Amino acid sequence: MSILTRPILEINLINLEKNYRFLQNLAKGADAAAVVKDDAYGLGAEMIAETLYQNAGCRTFFVAHGIEGEKIRPYVPNAKIYVLQGIGEDSLASFEQAKLTPVIAGKEQLAFWKEHKINGIKPAIQIETGLNRLGFREQELAELTDEERNLFSMALSHLACADEQGHFMNEHQLQNFNRLREIYFPKLPASLSASDGTFLGANYRFDIVRLGAAMYGINTAPYRENQMLPVVSVKAPVLEISTLNRGDFVGYSATYRAADERKIAIVSIGYGDGIPRSLSNVGKLFFYNGGKTSEARIIGRISMDNIICDVSEVENLHVGDMAFVINEFYTLDDIGRDAGTIGYEVLSRIGKNQRFERRYLK
Amino acid sequence: MSILTRPILEINLINLEKNYRFLQNLAKGADAAAVVKDDAYGLGAEMIAETLYQNAGCRTFFVAHGIEGEKIRPYVPNAKIYVLQGIGEDSLASFEQAKLTPVIAGKEQLAFWKEHKINGIKPAIQIETGLNRLGFREQELAELTDEERNLFSMALSHLACADEQGHFMNEHQLQNFNRLREIYFPKLPASLSASDGTFLGANYRFDIVRLGAAMYGINTAPYRENQMLPVVSVKAPVLEISTLNRGDFVGYSATYRAADERKIAIVSIGYGDGIPRSLSNVGKLFFYNGGKTSEARIIGRISMDNIICDVSEVENLHVGDMAFVINEFYTLDDIGRDAGTIGYEVLSRIGKNQRFERRYLK
Repeated sequence: MSILTRPILEINLINLEKNYRFLQNLAKGADAAAVVKDDAYGLGAEMIAETLYQNAGCRTFFVAHGIEGEKIRPYVPNAKIYVLQGIGEDSLASFEQAKLTPVIAGKEQLAFWKEHKINGIKPAIQIETGLNRLGFREQELAELTDEERNLFSMALSHLACADEQGHFMNEHQLQNFNRLREIYFPKLPASLSASDGTFLGANYRFDIVRLGAAMYGINTAPYRENQMLPVVSVKAPVLEISTLNRGDFVGYSATYRAADERKIAIVSIGYGDGIPRSLSNVGKLFFYNGGKTSEARIIGRISMDNIICDVSEVENLHVGDMAFVINEFYTLDDIGRDAGTIGYEVLSRIGKNQRFERRYLK
Repeated sequence: MSILTRPILEINLINLEKNYRFLQNLAKGADAAAVVKDDAYGLGAEMIAETLYQNAGCRTFFVAHGIEGEKIRPYVPNAKIYVLQGIGEDSLASFEQAKLTPVIAGKEQLAFWKEHKINGIKPAIQIETGLNRLGFREQELAELTDEERNLFSMALSHLACADEQGHFMNEHQLQNFNRLREIYFPKLPASLSASDGTFLGANYRFDIVRLGAAMYGINTAPYRENQMLPVVSVKAPVLEISTLNRGDFVGYSATYRAADERKIAIVSIGYGDGIPRSLSNVGKLFFYNGGKTSEARIIGRISMDNIICDVSEVENLHVGDMAFVINEFYTLDDIGRDAGTIGYEVLSRIGKNQRFERRYLK
């Protein structure tokens, strides 16, 4: 028996690389760019970017913010780094220092760029095709001068519903994108799809696909079984095992009451470690013991540091044993669903917590 | 007009200190300990602990994990640091190095402590009184030897429903705590209440109150108006302003459709910055302009890096203007409610994101 207190986050860089290569192969002919924004969805942008650069030859990266690009630059010296949120006064120094390529999404940013151009950099242009988020609208494209259009090196847009095969928006946006780039940027390389769009077919892939979520193991094509290998697993030690008597309450606001005697385990992980509180009384943990996998339902409210689960059916459990919180049987996508959100948001929360003992498998 | 891209997190250390003093005064006679676990709920444990230690004379701190105690030790050299998750093989070195005081919550940890005692440290004991989380149950207390009972320097428990004045659990746990400590630890200093319990009355305060959430501005006594000053504010720049036509969709999965022409703003913050995705189509942002405060409803799904809001009623808005995401009119508690959770979880997410320009007001 070990007495342990810390949760453990394992990041499988071997599977990450395999996922990247799978997607690269799926998108053969297109440049397979890696999306490492939001600190590589919380997994550590430096480590992820370096792995893909060194081991898989990735030479194109996307981040959201200038500072994110600056952070990874030392690890990907000869790569092109696109910055999706564009450029501004508060990020200009990062662009200059790290030679980043802004994605310009509106006329105000374009005016800023014209004033602050960086030698040797030609920005990308974001074109709005139906998401109604960032990007030049058709009318604004029409107002660009020839000189302005010649400033750009790549044309990009983003799909709204690419995780739903056959959604009318996909075809609608594809047509819009083709129409607009043929009118305004017929000679530029183009990029429309993130992971989800990459699965929609060759006509969605263009010159660059932007691989993020799927590379990290999320099923971005949920209309069929996940083809990605898991990259993230989380486990946490059992701090205590106890018994509930009939009528006992559990956790904050007493939201669970035992209808008969139950065995419970208190596990050393909580929403302070990024586990969504909305899994309270809904989610589950897993135990592996002597070749057997047991499910333990989360009972009561998840608190900042602890989860309580019902281990009445778990045999041979000891204090210090590991409860599996994210694993192959309870994936980021499963947790997203049970927590009323998506795997992306769960992933983005997890890795930012300093209490994890963080292990990179490579 | 400024062109900006980064969200800004402001942490008001002056208000933090005022909140601490208010609570310290409310709990006069008790030691006002500061809870800085989970990186001080994401706000930066070193900075928060140092502020309270230097400016407000705080000499007792609570963290959850050994590594958290080790991290703050240099900033609070002569303070007592309690560790709520207890001690184990994976944290022993932190305890030894930083002279931390474990809160022992079960017999397995007690056995571990007896093997690995640290010179000059007397642990606290956690007593279970109704939360059914960590702590010695009554039967386990009865089994302690005299020698074991003498190992401890403080007796602690935790309330389940202290944010509900008059909840039957409060009185029930108070009676349990008094009964058990009088039998087993009649001479030890005692601690029952976190912020919420501190408001319940003098009989809940004992020798040490553990101040966390309220100190950070959360209303832990929601049955009356918040008496705390705000500590956290978040704002983010408008990247783009655009127009929706009747019938246009917005955001992922096209969950919003414009019933008539609307003006929208795309704001540079998202769930990757800790803003709950469950605020999609529910939450709001604020703009201050010429002495006027305007509300802008969040429309469509919140994405990792952006929020789209309806600014049809916001006058005189420009790209680069700041949208207020967390402010005095839309507090952590309000966001918790609208997002289907509590302010604690929102707070714990926000400060962990590296993309914020982080400003400490002091």
